Amino acid sequence: MTTIQDVARAAGVSAMTVSNVINGHPNVRPATKERVMAAMTRLDYRVNVAARNLRKGRTGTIGLAVPEIDRPYYGRLAAAIIAAAARHGLRVAVEQTGAVRENELEALSLSRNRLYDGLILSTVGLGPADVDRLKVDHPLVILGERIFGGPVDHVAMPNVDGARAATRHLIDRGCRRIALVCGPRTGETDVSGLRRTGYAQALEEAGLPVDPDLVRTVDRLTMAAGARAARALASDDPGVDGVFCVTDTVAMGVLRGLADAGARVPDDVKVIGFDDVEESAYLVPSLSTIDPDHDLMAARAVDLLAARIDCPEQPLEREEFVSPYRVVARESTATGPTGSRAERRP
Amino acid sequence: MTTIQDVARAAGVSAMTVSNVINGHPNVRPATKERVMAAMTRLDYRVNVAARNLRKGRTGTIGLAVPEIDRPYYGRLAAAIIAAAARHGLRVAVEQTGAVRENELEALSLSRNRLYDGLILSTVGLGPADVDRLKVDHPLVILGERIFGGPVDHVAMPNVDGARAATRHLIDRGCRRIALVCGPRTGETDVSGLRRTGYAQALEEAGLPVDPDLVRTVDRLTMAAGARAARALASDDPGVDGVFCVTDTVAMGVLRGLADAGARVPDDVKVIGFDDVEESAYLVPSLSTIDPDHDLMAARAVDLLAARIDCPEQPLEREEFVSPYRVVARESTATGPTGSRAERRP
Repeated sequence: MTTIQDVARAAGVSAMTVSNVINGHPNVRPATKERVMAAMTRLDYRVNVAARNLRKGRTGTIGLAVPEIDRPYYGRLAAAIIAAAARHGLRVAVEQTGAVRENELEALSLSRNRLYDGLILSTVGLGPADVDRLKVDHPLVILGERIFGGPVDHVAMPNVDGARAATRHLIDRGCRRIALVCGPRTGETDVSGLRRTGYAQALEEAGLPVDPDLVRTVDRLTMAAGARAARALASDDPGVDGVFCVTDTVAMGVLRGLADAGARVPDDVKVIGFDDVEESAYLVPSLSTIDPDHDLMAARAVDLLAARIDCPEQPLEREEFVSPYRVVARESTATGPTGSRAERRP
Repeated sequence: MTTIQDVARAAGVSAMTVSNVINGHPNVRPATKERVMAAMTRLDYRVNVAARNLRKGRTGTIGLAVPEIDRPYYGRLAAAIIAAAARHGLRVAVEQTGAVRENELEALSLSRNRLYDGLILSTVGLGPADVDRLKVDHPLVILGERIFGGPVDHVAMPNVDGARAATRHLIDRGCRRIALVCGPRTGETDVSGLRRTGYAQALEEAGLPVDPDLVRTVDRLTMAAGARAARALASDDPGVDGVFCVTDTVAMGVLRGLADAGARVPDDVKVIGFDDVEESAYLVPSLSTIDPDHDLMAARAVDLLAARIDCPEQPLEREEFVSPYRVVARESTATGPTGSRAERRP
């Protein structure tokens, strides 16, 4: 049987270097890695990963549970997390929960059963009542909403503050009848509930009323639902001059629905989203939005998880990290006579 | 120590049902699954997955290696594959290769080393010269381009035929000076090379010349590159009245670039993409495209891989499956005086 030493000799490197290649350490030079892999192929060398992991009590894989990987927001987040995990020599298994509470619990359970070394859970379905379920003895980081003051590391979006800044941006650009398109209110702690709070705060700070007619709830945060909501808003005609959409995905649908209804953006109605997905810069008109710094959130989540994996025994202080944000002003909230061509994307 | 029988008793189900829940079989009713999981939590039952997999010689996980998970096309494909794999009780670990040949080889090597039960590889970097590297003794399915007539199962896109149909659609809508925006030609077998062949075939069939000035090559198939290519096309002004973009992602950038240059779509220039990502139906104007039936491709790839995993010894016939396609006509190729409002998305 071929040993790690045989591979090292054939590739002209140390056994440690071969081991680093096998373990996916990021510091091996590409040319060296290629040489080692060629030698492994030539000599038919096999690592029995399952046996090795059993020995180490590790799988080298972390779980990432997100509602749906084909939403632009989760795709971008997953890409950033996979890249950040690779820097730690960790692979990422992606689970789709469909935002269903039971599936989120199952993801927790899979990790608990040692399929993964740890889990990053982007939860939508779990609520404060589930906080006991999170008292797990394996590495876990909750990503996304600001639900759990509880027993677990948490990387949160700036939901309330970001939503307030988005709404304030519309007010600053002259909007006075600002609609909100959001998901159903499931509590004070879900993404739509939190962003709705920020929306209401900004209106109140500006002395504007919160008109229930202008708050449009959609079942799911999809483009299709956004388009329907916008067509309904336009046909009910409550004199809307601005729309804050709780996600860029919903905003893409809203832009489409407004176009269907013959409303011009930004001349008749200004629109802002939340997330800054890549598409937003390329839409016509390009979409103003809140950038919550995905890469920083992803890096922070993976760093926290890796620290838990490396020191499972040590009772570290639980961390809560709230990402910073910035307002990205693009054509969809532009003012002035040049309208939709007034501002170019950065 | 808690046994599987203890859990079964506590949940009021059979040990087989508990086993089905643990193994992620799709046929367990949600209420039952919830009850079993609650019992597992209450009794602190642990499956040692690593030990079980070692016993079975399985990990229960397949690898999916794609260039970048945050491109809409790969996001949609990954979502479909994760859903199809779940129906087989398999989890999916996503690797990002960045379309780099070395990383694609590494994904092959990881699977070979039994980290995964099998691998679905969406290859961009590997070429016909690498065909020997694919003579692997573990389950492998190549997804995407039609490169390898060789030793491996292959689920292919209808690249040439789809591109010919897209170009023919522009010709049918009255276009005569049709540009192509594609990636660098790395051979006759890469996605851009194949779709370029289909483009040229359609032009020749219609008696139109292939003008090298109208073939615009971009380094990477991104929105940014598409936008730059379209601005350059408009400023060189070769009288273009149609653009076939090799992917919808590139087409989103092209639509943006044409808007920047003041060209109206579809009145001045008609645009068609390839992939039918979700966004395409919601753009303004909505994007005509080729739908290669992602869900069917994903299901076929997973079915083939699962068959290989279940019968590793049996020398099955190698399969090549080419997905069917359809032309999706939307506003970006509409004709007539009503222009961009003439056709509504389906």
